Amino acid sequence: MIGFIGLGAMGQAIAANILKAGFELTVYNRTPDKTKDLQQAGARVAGSVAELCSNADIVLTMITDDAVLAQLTGGENGMLAHLRRDALHISLSTISPAFSDALAAQHAARDQQYVAAPVFGKPDVAALAKLWIANAGSAAAKEKARPVLEAIGQGIYDFGEKPGAANLVKLSGNFIIAAMIETLAEAYTLGEKNGVSRHDMHEFFTSTLFPVPIYKNYGRLIADHNYLPVGGAPKILQKDMRLVNEVAAHSSVAMPFANIVHNRMIAMANANVQEDWVGFARQAATEAGL
Amino acid sequence: MIGFIGLGAMGQAIAANILKAGFELTVYNRTPDKTKDLQQAGARVAGSVAELCSNADIVLTMITDDAVLAQLTGGENGMLAHLRRDALHISLSTISPAFSDALAAQHAARDQQYVAAPVFGKPDVAALAKLWIANAGSAAAKEKARPVLEAIGQGIYDFGEKPGAANLVKLSGNFIIAAMIETLAEAYTLGEKNGVSRHDMHEFFTSTLFPVPIYKNYGRLIADHNYLPVGGAPKILQKDMRLVNEVAAHSSVAMPFANIVHNRMIAMANANVQEDWVGFARQAATEAGL
Amino acid sequence: MIGFIGLGAMGQAIAANILKAGFELTVYNRTPDKTKDLQQAGARVAGSVAELCSNADIVLTMITDDAVLAQLTGGENGMLAHLRRDALHISLSTISPAFSDALAAQHAARDQQYVAAPVFGKPDVAALAKLWIANAGSAAAKEKARPVLEAIGQGIYDFGEKPGAANLVKLSGNFIIAAMIETLAEAYTLGEKNGVSRHDMHEFFTSTLFPVPIYKNYGRLIADHNYLPVGGAPKILQKDMRLVNEVAAHSSVAMPFANIVHNRMIAMANANVQEDWVGFARQAATEAGL
Amino acid sequence: MIGFIGLGAMGQAIAANILKAGFELTVYNRTPDKTKDLQQAGARVAGSVAELCSNADIVLTMITDDAVLAQLTGGENGMLAHLRRDALHISLSTISPAFSDALAAQHAARDQQYVAAPVFGKPDVAALAKLWIANAGSAAAKEKARPVLEAIGQGIYDFGEKPGAANLVKLSGNFIIAAMIETLAEAYTLGEKNGVSRHDMHEFFTSTLFPVPIYKNYGRLIADHNYLPVGGAPKILQKDMRLVNEVAAHSSVAMPFANIVHNRMIAMANANVQEDWVGFARQAATEAGL
Repeated sequence: MIGFIGLGAMGQAIAANILKAGFELTVYNRTPDKTKDLQQAGARVAGSVAELCSNADIVLTMITDDAVLAQLTGGENGMLAHLRRDALHISLSTISPAFSDALAAQHAARDQQYVAAPVFGKPDVAALAKLWIANAGSAAAKEKARPVLEAIGQGIYDFGEKPGAANLVKLSGNFIIAAMIETLAEAYTLGEKNGVSRHDMHEFFTSTLFPVPIYKNYGRLIADHNYLPVGGAPKILQKDMRLVNEVAAHSSVAMPFANIVHNRMIAMANANVQEDWVGFARQAATEAGL
Repeated sequence: MIGFIGLGAMGQAIAANILKAGFELTVYNRTPDKTKDLQQAGARVAGSVAELCSNADIVLTMITDDAVLAQLTGGENGMLAHLRRDALHISLSTISPAFSDALAAQHAARDQQYVAAPVFGKPDVAALAKLWIANAGSAAAKEKARPVLEAIGQGIYDFGEKPGAANLVKLSGNFIIAAMIETLAEAYTLGEKNGVSRHDMHEFFTSTLFPVPIYKNYGRLIADHNYLPVGGAPKILQKDMRLVNEVAAHSSVAMPFANIVHNRMIAMANANVQEDWVGFARQAATEAGL
Repeated sequence: MIGFIGLGAMGQAIAANILKAGFELTVYNRTPDKTKDLQQAGARVAGSVAELCSNADIVLTMITDDAVLAQLTGGENGMLAHLRRDALHISLSTISPAFSDALAAQHAARDQQYVAAPVFGKPDVAALAKLWIANAGSAAAKEKARPVLEAIGQGIYDFGEKPGAANLVKLSGNFIIAAMIETLAEAYTLGEKNGVSRHDMHEFFTSTLFPVPIYKNYGRLIADHNYLPVGGAPKILQKDMRLVNEVAAHSSVAMPFANIVHNRMIAMANANVQEDWVGFARQAATEAGL
Repeated sequence: MIGFIGLGAMGQAIAANILKAGFELTVYNRTPDKTKDLQQAGARVAGSVAELCSNADIVLTMITDDAVLAQLTGGENGMLAHLRRDALHISLSTISPAFSDALAAQHAARDQQYVAAPVFGKPDVAALAKLWIANAGSAAAKEKARPVLEAIGQGIYDFGEKPGAANLVKLSGNFIIAAMIETLAEAYTLGEKNGVSRHDMHEFFTSTLFPVPIYKNYGRLIADHNYLPVGGAPKILQKDMRLVNEVAAHSSVAMPFANIVHNRMIAMANANVQEDWVGFARQAATEAGL
């Protein structure tokens, strides 16, 4: 049996695909109403983490951050205490590499398995089972995880034995996306202030140098001054950018671009704006008097 | 007859394609030895700008910067003085929008035509006639330029009547590329310092989110710590980044990323390193102690 | 006879001290109502730049920027055309070093003298004749300027023969002040968000490491979240920061702090806020959610 | 009896003044040879932390960072285990506010007292008992600490009951100093590249706007391109800048200047240069090609 904990927008979409792929699935969420759709689709609902873990071969988690995952895994009611020997924890969350490695060690000390398998894609991509997955952990654990991950993604990329490596790739990827958004925000703002249409620029760059969906989709929103739909809450994205900067600081890497997108997310989170990082474009436009 | 002035690596590749397309071509270069290959391929060589201009219907220029182009166009031996009435000047150079607009006005005052047609692509792309061209000027001038531009590029994109708009798009594009390079340099450096292979990261990102040549090619060099071949001299690229920042300053746009890539180019130009902007990756690596 | 052109808040305060020191003074201002107080205090009012210049041994100018000073000095009604042979132009304005040097050359071509003498101090300091003056030009011109400058400042500092040197020092000084403000804004904001009183921090730092008026005065405003009185219009200070960045760009100097304070001023000028650079503290506070 | 742990350059100078003031002093250092001078001056030398603590009313610590202080205070041989009931720990170190507060709670749980009393000043200032001290903790603990702190400093500033507040002030102060250095480095570099003497600029600014020792002393080194003597090891100063950025990140404050000086310290620490933050000036000069 497969267990799934953490039914936010991403978690629900992923869990649904696991079910569709024919796996027996039990789900758990702190706020129980999020389990309804999955229950109707055939999932069992566990009343507690302990109950879910005690019967599962594999448990996937999709959780906000280090702190919440630490709470979920630790303590007398936590995953570590209740997961069976040889059971596998697949962590899909965007967490710090250091915490991921520490968690792996804790599982190993209980003869449990752990892989980090953070995913790239918004909820609509998750719903189509088209996520890209960075995967790291022991060969045996990755082998065991493979059929489940294949049910939710379009590609699994191996980053070795150390789980934190996959988490670092996920953080790096989010940084790259954030930097791409800031770049386009600055460029299109420069255009608009100089009488060049944002849309013409967008068409040009995404027809020539950057003809890929991520440029087309984010760039379209930026060209439109359109900050909806929201792909990730500001507090979550702020956390991601904070983690990038923390890892950089602790490994002595200067990342001036990462500093800037972090500051952008801080300002957004403090302003309580319900926008994701496309909101960088609003900040750039506001600073430019648009 | 078509004239071509400015036979650097880009200029030679472009002029050769004009010739190949069947146009009658006369070329001029300040240092005459660069005309040899084209002469062998069938081009005439003019002894002066005045001689070239006096017989040409269209003259293309591919020149380093505003100052050199001002020298070439102005004065008693310059293009403005010698170009025929109704002749067309196609400026391929990466120059400031303000100078491009001023030059257009000077040509108009002499009943000459002017279009800005800056190009995207390195010399190898130019040789394949695969440049992308941003084009702006009067409808009549653009119409007249079209057959020549079609001989050198794979796509022509219209940015309206004001020539400077095309130059602004070119500057914006160079900024976007520079920012992409800095982004990958920071990300891959973060990976390497944390035990994740630069190449694995590169394969992942260019197989998933960014599967386009510009990411693959620049990213490969960055992953390899390889700073050759040099696509543009540091002084030229410094000039491009300076122009981006100048246009931003004069149009009151805050561009923190553009500031950073400008500073990177300043440091490279001062260090007399023969590297193009891929050298950002060396700077990032050095700062990180790699 | 001494002439004075440019009667903003600074100009009026300075001109009044020239009068108080016993010099015969004639003033001119584009908007004539600003001459009233000085006229009552004994100054003559000229009807034009030409009239003022034709009778003056020394003319001081206190003008917004390069463009306005170029208009004032050039053309058939300008200072260059009407200043007498051997007359001296003392430029108090915050202008670009390059323009200052160019203007010096134009005066020299007419056997007129020129010194750059930009001043440090707000209008209240100017009123007390306590300005600090950076001075550069030929030895003879500086000698001739000395008695007048002594009437308006508390100290004259020599920066050699090249006038632009004094202007560069003025720009550098404004950058240093702007950077000090940003520094205190960040520090006090960090304190407040962590439960430490801005005022306690202010008292501490200005009693210990930084016991000087410029830290006490600007720091007090920052500690108070008080953005009045306005010492300089945003557009003027934006111009100053733009000039710092332009000089840096043209002399190939990377100035990351100067980039940031420039961006702050751009945002303020675009927001049409009537605040001087103390408004950096409002920006920092807003970004921090205060 | 007073105990003192941590005999680096700062610790030795401070401990010597405690002895001079007439206090009975016992010292401990991990590497015992650093105790010699103090022993000759009359201090007793303890063989272990436990021995020192078991007899002390007050123990001062001057320790590199959170991790080393955590090791010193925790465990079965640590200060927490061996300090007497009602004994006072005065922490002089530059540590994170969060760790300082946590340590205070641990002491309180054992009925021990704790004050944070980080100090400003280099070893030469410490030797003159001229340190400035930011102080926070319970009223009783601060009262008890006062006579000792008066023996080592010229001023004690109260930041309330929460110890971390004093540590935050210390971190802020180090940030302010670092930002001052970067500011002067950029300004003097701009001057030199434009033909203005660094020394003339230095004389001007420290005679007029900034006539205080901290500007005069650091500015002199920067003007001289002189990076000696070293006031603090790069790794220590990198840690300080990292802590500033971490506190900023966790309290959601955007600090662009703090980002930059952090990056400067990262580059210096990675380069294994034995210079303190005055080395920012070398970086600025190198980037500018000087």
